[in-house]
Amino acid sequence: MIRAGIVGGTGYTGVELLRILALHTEVEVSVVTSRSDTGLRVDALYPSLRGYIDAVFSLPEVETLVECDVVFFATPNGTAMLMAEQLLARGVKVIDLSADFRLKDAQEWSKWYGMEHVCPDLIADAVYGLPELNREAIKKADLIACPGCYPTAVQLGFLPLLENDRIDVKHLIADVKSGVSGAGRKAELATLMSETGESFKAYAVGGHRHLPEIVQGLELVARKSVGLTFVPHLTPMIRGIHATLYGQAQGKLDDVQALYEQRYASESFVDVLPQGSHPDTRNVRGSNNCQISLHQPQGGQTIVVLSVIDNLVKGAAGQAVQNMNLMFGLKEDLALKTIALYP
Amino acid sequence: MIRAGIVGGTGYTGVELLRILALHTEVEVSVVTSRSDTGLRVDALYPSLRGYIDAVFSLPEVETLVECDVVFFATPNGTAMLMAEQLLARGVKVIDLSADFRLKDAQEWSKWYGMEHVCPDLIADAVYGLPELNREAIKKADLIACPGCYPTAVQLGFLPLLENDRIDVKHLIADVKSGVSGAGRKAELATLMSETGESFKAYAVGGHRHLPEIVQGLELVARKSVGLTFVPHLTPMIRGIHATLYGQAQGKLDDVQALYEQRYASESFVDVLPQGSHPDTRNVRGSNNCQISLHQPQGGQTIVVLSVIDNLVKGAAGQAVQNMNLMFGLKEDLALKTIALYP
Amino acid sequence: MIRAGIVGGTGYTGVELLRILALHTEVEVSVVTSRSDTGLRVDALYPSLRGYIDAVFSLPEVETLVECDVVFFATPNGTAMLMAEQLLARGVKVIDLSADFRLKDAQEWSKWYGMEHVCPDLIADAVYGLPELNREAIKKADLIACPGCYPTAVQLGFLPLLENDRIDVKHLIADVKSGVSGAGRKAELATLMSETGESFKAYAVGGHRHLPEIVQGLELVARKSVGLTFVPHLTPMIRGIHATLYGQAQGKLDDVQALYEQRYASESFVDVLPQGSHPDTRNVRGSNNCQISLHQPQGGQTIVVLSVIDNLVKGAAGQAVQNMNLMFGLKEDLALKTIALYP
Amino acid sequence: MIRAGIVGGTGYTGVELLRILALHTEVEVSVVTSRSDTGLRVDALYPSLRGYIDAVFSLPEVETLVECDVVFFATPNGTAMLMAEQLLARGVKVIDLSADFRLKDAQEWSKWYGMEHVCPDLIADAVYGLPELNREAIKKADLIACPGCYPTAVQLGFLPLLENDRIDVKHLIADVKSGVSGAGRKAELATLMSETGESFKAYAVGGHRHLPEIVQGLELVARKSVGLTFVPHLTPMIRGIHATLYGQAQGKLDDVQALYEQRYASESFVDVLPQGSHPDTRNVRGSNNCQISLHQPQGGQTIVVLSVIDNLVKGAAGQAVQNMNLMFGLKEDLALKTIALYP
Repeated sequence: MIRAGIVGGTGYTGVELLRILALHTEVEVSVVTSRSDTGLRVDALYPSLRGYIDAVFSLPEVETLVECDVVFFATPNGTAMLMAEQLLARGVKVIDLSADFRLKDAQEWSKWYGMEHVCPDLIADAVYGLPELNREAIKKADLIACPGCYPTAVQLGFLPLLENDRIDVKHLIADVKSGVSGAGRKAELATLMSETGESFKAYAVGGHRHLPEIVQGLELVARKSVGLTFVPHLTPMIRGIHATLYGQAQGKLDDVQALYEQRYASESFVDVLPQGSHPDTRNVRGSNNCQISLHQPQGGQTIVVLSVIDNLVKGAAGQAVQNMNLMFGLKEDLALKTIALYP
Repeated sequence: MIRAGIVGGTGYTGVELLRILALHTEVEVSVVTSRSDTGLRVDALYPSLRGYIDAVFSLPEVETLVECDVVFFATPNGTAMLMAEQLLARGVKVIDLSADFRLKDAQEWSKWYGMEHVCPDLIADAVYGLPELNREAIKKADLIACPGCYPTAVQLGFLPLLENDRIDVKHLIADVKSGVSGAGRKAELATLMSETGESFKAYAVGGHRHLPEIVQGLELVARKSVGLTFVPHLTPMIRGIHATLYGQAQGKLDDVQALYEQRYASESFVDVLPQGSHPDTRNVRGSNNCQISLHQPQGGQTIVVLSVIDNLVKGAAGQAVQNMNLMFGLKEDLALKTIALYP
Repeated sequence: MIRAGIVGGTGYTGVELLRILALHTEVEVSVVTSRSDTGLRVDALYPSLRGYIDAVFSLPEVETLVECDVVFFATPNGTAMLMAEQLLARGVKVIDLSADFRLKDAQEWSKWYGMEHVCPDLIADAVYGLPELNREAIKKADLIACPGCYPTAVQLGFLPLLENDRIDVKHLIADVKSGVSGAGRKAELATLMSETGESFKAYAVGGHRHLPEIVQGLELVARKSVGLTFVPHLTPMIRGIHATLYGQAQGKLDDVQALYEQRYASESFVDVLPQGSHPDTRNVRGSNNCQISLHQPQGGQTIVVLSVIDNLVKGAAGQAVQNMNLMFGLKEDLALKTIALYP
Repeated sequence: MIRAGIVGGTGYTGVELLRILALHTEVEVSVVTSRSDTGLRVDALYPSLRGYIDAVFSLPEVETLVECDVVFFATPNGTAMLMAEQLLARGVKVIDLSADFRLKDAQEWSKWYGMEHVCPDLIADAVYGLPELNREAIKKADLIACPGCYPTAVQLGFLPLLENDRIDVKHLIADVKSGVSGAGRKAELATLMSETGESFKAYAVGGHRHLPEIVQGLELVARKSVGLTFVPHLTPMIRGIHATLYGQAQGKLDDVQALYEQRYASESFVDVLPQGSHPDTRNVRGSNNCQISLHQPQGGQTIVVLSVIDNLVKGAAGQAVQNMNLMFGLKEDLALKTIALYP
């Protein structure tokens, strides 16, 4: 059994990791940390886990965590980088769900995240955990930087077009809508039900932290500079991301459809829908799937890619477990073959 | 492998059966019928099932269904009774999620359901599929009448008090709130999002079809006549039932708490929360669990039982599979050990 | 023009007062205070008010407020009692939307609100601002204690039965459901959309602060001791309260219906629906109305009263303005003749 | 008093007209028609209107309607064109909230609406009822074609840029999100709460009926051919439209901001928010306002316009009344000075 630790077990990505790992046949969750809830039973905070998790929240200390084979960081940004080096030195694999190791440029990271990076040397070792792009590197990695939720939906949506140089990369648009769980489990006015229920808005149009991550990812694939306008929105639901992607593409829709189907044919978690479909976030709710469909309105040059995921699963905890499965030589979909909760 | 058929695969209980059975290691779903969608792939109607179900909707015909070991009826009331006799005669076990065999009195049934019962003789053979009450009978049954969603939440909530004669059965109150999926997948004004979102109301206060079913169940346990006021409400969410039960009880809350914990100690799917808790429907969403807590406000005589389930799982498809597991000698919780989707 | 001040203008009852008073033809909102947002334009915080309110948040100081004819306190409990005496002494009328002057027994108040009452002598002078009960006293009052949201819905629902001694007051039950705006505009985990959306729960079953207020009100009307079980619930919507009230009543439903219709015949804001109706909170959303309907299930002794209000209007700001209209000799429904926002 | 008739009073735009007109000081609603509910009191169907509307639904007949000064059509497409000619001939002004007279090209109309136009000659007389564009023509009009909800939000958002030739009209993108009330009050599976709650999707990406209307409007203003990609989405809320508009613009954001502020300075219902703002649909819910803000992410060439309205008010009934006020020489904002319902 793989012994797994979760640092930051009280946020939504933490409890989602617990939901998935509790039923993982090859994993035993041996440590769950929470500074604020140390000493409390995990299932006292999360009654949904009663009967499935026997753990008690402990302090996030290296000495405790080194007994794990792998440690997941489901923490706010800036925490994983404080402990990763020590854990790696002691032979513990690290899967970071936060943003600490996502950007390859430490300067850029500091600019967007408002703090110095404490272990910039580690950044180069970190593998960006998008299995559909980096599967082989992930298998050999000790440190994984799990992609953000928006970056997952957007990159999977643009990938085949960029890899094949079939789109004008100067003017890409990603109009993306997220459920409120993406904002995390934090006591904040802005995500109260009275504030976000029955309402819709864009936010951070001037610049969102996921922008440099997406651009970095797209440029790696496109092998050239990319111009992206990224507008995130908050939609009145709990789970789900819907990316509506626009670009000027060459070629007929039939060809693009074939391109996508081929590219993702052997991927367990990326599902290209029949042409003309409209993916619905509910159809991936609670599952690790990304569903994609393609349109070319009025037969023009503009291609529209619709890409949906569950932000807490494929956009966070599910993808993290997918990475772990790869790192430990397990079947990639272990504990992840669950069906979306519809309705 | 058990070959299972689902009649009425296009409603919410039907698709929920598919979600559960698709991952059941001992079951193969061999027939899924739908009069309106015959010929269509199941996953074309329900993209959430893509990759999990390979079936095509067929017509609901006995000759096709007899190839199954068990047939689930996830149909409107009045359909199962038309086919059950023939299927049973051919050795097929029948699990009815509709109301056709729930009431032991065919006259009473006709009164509430507005039609003649076509096979009243079968009613006596039907076992009421509440495993916590009828486990041994279910194991031997060929025909199961699955309890309604409200009756499940209410009966599990009152059971220990009634079995032990600890409550005044003359004046029971069940104030119950349901998510809108309980109304089914039907094109109706009343359950449009514009009608039910952001609003709350009681309905059918004058008399709801689940009233005689609940009373029948409570009286069987209490072994006397029961006076129940049952008020169902529609709450603006999709899944979940919350029953708030009131009665005049004898004894201290500590004793009642002990009674409940003892009664349900060996039940996999009924979870008595610590005293003073408030169960939340989200903590059972998508799971087969019933969570119960007990209160005695101001130390008075009135006991308040809070009982929550997911109406589509423990209140319908999950309980149906639990019954099937029992009927076929399988582990009772097979395919049902899933954790609620929180948040 | 009446000059009105609002202390605590940044909470939901505060902004609701602004919404109503901005269009009140006899009122000019001259002071809006907020400790946290002093100096900020009111419509910068609340863009819904752009074009309607020209005020800037100021500090809550007596010297500023004495220039008003009336001051509304839309503050957390414990604030109004600090300033009311000084304002009254300077001839300013005070309408308190918080709980500071609701309970007539200062000891009881301290027990439930966890602090000493700083001006217990004022309590006797305060008139409980339920116009349907205390209209004449309100007209002459200088200090109004506006009823809580739950107490408004419950008292209006029980009033005619109690006034006419037509119900067994020993065993009343109030099962009440509230939208989340009732919890106020506070950064708290429990009312995040991810926590309260798509979920339903009871809370404070052991004892809610509105319990003594309701009991005090019911006993005044019944002129005897009342036994009440009060269970509040949180329902996943923003506005609205639905009270489901149970009691053992004498007499036929027709008579009770007539009783209610007669009692409320001349009330602008209490509307008795036709027998057999089910009021829906959406039909009073944004309006100052209370809609009530009556049932006697199965013709038994138990009467069920359904009573709905908008917790922020009839349950708070609307009722406060109704009181103000009475206190200043204006038409009672001035600025309150607005129609519920459906759908 | 102006006598107004409403044909199709049972849909959401019909009941919204009633909500507004019931409080209009210069209007008396004298006829409300409904084929399906003839003979029923209007407030029996819509209890929110109890006390405000005394009318009974009647059959939609010309002889009854000619007694009105103005008739609103809140009907499905294809109905207004059957009666408009007769009413106009009898001196009755007609305000059509449906699409019958929106497109100037009858052939194009037939293509998108799937039926022949029965009075193509009237199309030329119809004035497109966007007051911010056509105020003077509206004042003199007898027949108004009220804009669709999406077209209103998109056109108001693009107008100043197009009028001043400051944007590349070849590649405009309108990514628009609508609440579900936009789908109308029809018994349909797709808009059940269980289907649309907690989920987000695009629809009609291949071509939505509002596309030709928007293009026609933009081209009129731009005085040249326009290339628009329009993608509508369904968002899990009842009211509200959020348009996110993209284009390649010349000039600095400061200048564009000034342009918008100037263009809409004297408009009562279009409100340009401070630079950097993010309008939220809740801030216009129930009001006739359009709130707009402007962004130029990363100081690039792409301009992002955010434009929000309430689809049932400024997107339908409110705008219709605004048109009526203009047609009858009344103050343009009569009965429309209501504040959005927040929260």
